[in-house]
Amino acid sequence: MMFQPDRAPRILTEEQEETVHETAMRILEEIGTDVKHDDARRLLAEAGMNVEDERVYWDRGFVMEQIAKAPSAFRLRARNPDRSLTVGMGGDPDAVPVWMNVGGPPFASDLDEGRRSGRIQDHDTFIKLTQATDVLNCAQTGAAEATDLQMEVRHMDMEYSTIRYSDKPYTTYGTSGPRARDGIRMAEIVHGGREAIEAEPALMGIVNPNSPLIWDFRMTDALIAWAEAKQPIVVTPFLLAGATSAVSVSGGLTQQVAEALSGVALAQLVREGVPCLYGSFFTVTDMRTGSPAFGTPESVWGILAGAQLARRYGLPFRGGGGLASSPAVDAQAAAETQMMLWATNLAATDVVLHAAGWLEGGLTASFEKFALDVELLRQFQVQAQGIGFSEEEIAFDALKETGPGGLFLSSPHTRAHFKEWLYMSPLFQTPDFATWETMGSETTEVAANRAWKQLLETYEDPGLDAAIDEELRAYMARRRDAPDLFVED
Amino acid sequence: MMFQPDRAPRILTEEQEETVHETAMRILEEIGTDVKHDDARRLLAEAGMNVEDERVYWDRGFVMEQIAKAPSAFRLRARNPDRSLTVGMGGDPDAVPVWMNVGGPPFASDLDEGRRSGRIQDHDTFIKLTQATDVLNCAQTGAAEATDLQMEVRHMDMEYSTIRYSDKPYTTYGTSGPRARDGIRMAEIVHGGREAIEAEPALMGIVNPNSPLIWDFRMTDALIAWAEAKQPIVVTPFLLAGATSAVSVSGGLTQQVAEALSGVALAQLVREGVPCLYGSFFTVTDMRTGSPAFGTPESVWGILAGAQLARRYGLPFRGGGGLASSPAVDAQAAAETQMMLWATNLAATDVVLHAAGWLEGGLTASFEKFALDVELLRQFQVQAQGIGFSEEEIAFDALKETGPGGLFLSSPHTRAHFKEWLYMSPLFQTPDFATWETMGSETTEVAANRAWKQLLETYEDPGLDAAIDEELRAYMARRRDAPDLFVED
Repeated sequence: MMFQPDRAPRILTEEQEETVHETAMRILEEIGTDVKHDDARRLLAEAGMNVEDERVYWDRGFVMEQIAKAPSAFRLRARNPDRSLTVGMGGDPDAVPVWMNVGGPPFASDLDEGRRSGRIQDHDTFIKLTQATDVLNCAQTGAAEATDLQMEVRHMDMEYSTIRYSDKPYTTYGTSGPRARDGIRMAEIVHGGREAIEAEPALMGIVNPNSPLIWDFRMTDALIAWAEAKQPIVVTPFLLAGATSAVSVSGGLTQQVAEALSGVALAQLVREGVPCLYGSFFTVTDMRTGSPAFGTPESVWGILAGAQLARRYGLPFRGGGGLASSPAVDAQAAAETQMMLWATNLAATDVVLHAAGWLEGGLTASFEKFALDVELLRQFQVQAQGIGFSEEEIAFDALKETGPGGLFLSSPHTRAHFKEWLYMSPLFQTPDFATWETMGSETTEVAANRAWKQLLETYEDPGLDAAIDEELRAYMARRRDAPDLFVED
Repeated sequence: MMFQPDRAPRILTEEQEETVHETAMRILEEIGTDVKHDDARRLLAEAGMNVEDERVYWDRGFVMEQIAKAPSAFRLRARNPDRSLTVGMGGDPDAVPVWMNVGGPPFASDLDEGRRSGRIQDHDTFIKLTQATDVLNCAQTGAAEATDLQMEVRHMDMEYSTIRYSDKPYTTYGTSGPRARDGIRMAEIVHGGREAIEAEPALMGIVNPNSPLIWDFRMTDALIAWAEAKQPIVVTPFLLAGATSAVSVSGGLTQQVAEALSGVALAQLVREGVPCLYGSFFTVTDMRTGSPAFGTPESVWGILAGAQLARRYGLPFRGGGGLASSPAVDAQAAAETQMMLWATNLAATDVVLHAAGWLEGGLTASFEKFALDVELLRQFQVQAQGIGFSEEEIAFDALKETGPGGLFLSSPHTRAHFKEWLYMSPLFQTPDFATWETMGSETTEVAANRAWKQLLETYEDPGLDAAIDEELRAYMARRRDAPDLFVED
């Protein structure tokens, strides 16, 4: 079967993999990382690391010992237990790839209203679409930034949006310690207290070091919050070759290992056994514009090599996604996205943030792109099932009956099976040209506009227990009245 | 290294592969194929096949013995010897993938003139573009059908177009015995006679059985012509599940093996050792329109399984291409094309017809699609090179110098290497949104229109020896005056 860890291309030779590892260890030991969080530095010093001012020189024996404490697979609970997931295909045969909507864009876009600053209503709609499609099995908070709400507190509104409109598991917003703690507290309310979510985690948090080689206060503080609550942490160096890492793929990979493993090691030091993912977000800087370029050969290599390295370290892998640089839902966007999705699936990526809806280098959450990506993801799901080899599908008798020169189009065998066996894309059509022209020469973008609206019409509100809802709202109200709690460093 | 035969995904289990083979042998033995060519039937009867009227029941021992006579790799000469190729990556480590422009569409299209019936000037332009780009190493005659010329003789004008405007190796037009013989005669003129092209072949011919299971007169006659002249034959069942084969992938594969191997066996019977390729053109019928759908999961499986089967039989593999159903150069077209090109490259496909320019299910040769596909193919070429691991690329010293929190964007290491190491797409851009909008919100299709015109400007006429040119023209003139020679069956 394709898209399984044991079928993933090993893009690095053993020698190259060893070189990456050895160089990463040298980076940690000889260059070190800055850790701009007093408690974290204290913990690391107590564990025997050499700490000079803010610089921590990591001992490779310690790092490897720590990362070995992270599980290779874990359960992620949803408020609808049927939607809970096992994460980590390298560690558990029941695990599945986790696919989520886009997260992070400050802008939202659709053909009707165009590109605008993200609003909470856009966030709600993306979460409803994520809930409505069976292709995505997880939601990501921050689908579009709710810029119409007050910055200091809107992370809670977006978290509420995710919790309220979807009963799938989710990734929390958490871009700082206080925000991470709000997300944890809200999950506690939903799932019946701290003990419940510690027993089986209820959210995933993302930390990005400030590359190169800085663990800043905010992200370290968030990492500590999630580790303490035993919620899975996706440690993802955000590497743009030529900007936040050296202008080469092997240079990016060595830095990625150093940053990812130091983050995982710290998390394990805070709380042994907290699930951690090896995260890869790697591509190159387009030196003509200074912007990241997605879908390039380097980004394909980054995903494949990242997955190989994650498995070396026994960690579930987060990487890839439906990433594209194009500002429009055009051929470039689809081409870039397919480069990414093929690599993502070939690598048997465990957790895929931004699987649907990412446009314009991540600046825009596009509803039409969401519909396009859902279609592409569905095709990969079908591909993963592999070729059917039942007697009826092998079809010797059907061929014998049809015979040389016969027609299968109207044969009983075809009529009996085509609906079940053929994949016919709802989005991609094969009209004859005259019909297509008469109907207005519609491009995919226009068809996708119809597709996401149709999907939205199928949305069914999963509801939310009234007492929980009230408690969530009360918590948010209290927090909105205590702005000093948001002082972060 | 990716995209090599030994790295290709083995999508069929050994048992499944065996089932396909066994079923194909049963098809040949128990159902048989019609062979509507007297000479071919006589040859097969003499070789011991059971022949009843037009039906030939093939002996599996004979078939397997015959196909073993075909080489696993061969040289294909170009009139510019530097452009000659070794074909067959499974048989020769020096072999390279052979990538060609589209062939066969009755329509041509670009943004300036729109979609129109193909003309000889469109054919010339596609050949010039194929010559101009370093991404394509082979030309395909029939890039756009020259419908402005007389049907009975225009195959020669298109063949001349290929020979005159490109010095790369090529695929001949040859959709019948007489047309195939014209192509052979023209190659003889170019390369100095029959002996020369028999010693090292100068063209590739394509035969498609009339599926299911008919070797009709025209295609069989062309196959015999090429076999006699020892020119490589690409035996490609044209299978649309639910139309020309059963509505299942495994059914299509068994029929593909039966048809492809019977064609190769016949070719070897005509002339032992003639290079033959195992060809796969397999996808499904969109039952909503009756049209073939490209880029579907089934077509991906078809390529991967076809390549696996070709290697089982020790034959070079022809399959895949930049195939798309979309009538426009939009997101659907790019998505479908990427599905096909990923499978094509993962399968380490030896010969790729229709690698650039195919649109609308093959009905249209699009200049903008050509530019898009060339860009995608180039990205696969870069990917195939793999990650660089020089000391300078591993970049430990560069990272040490930059240090935690440093900036690579302006570092000496970045400035020294970015031009060499980063892939920056000429077609795909990463503009900021405001700039993009100000410049007219250009889609990829518009950028591709500029791209193919720019490529055309770089075209350098390879010239053609005046005596050869004269002889070719004289041959075509004689043939135009002898229309009775085109009676075909």
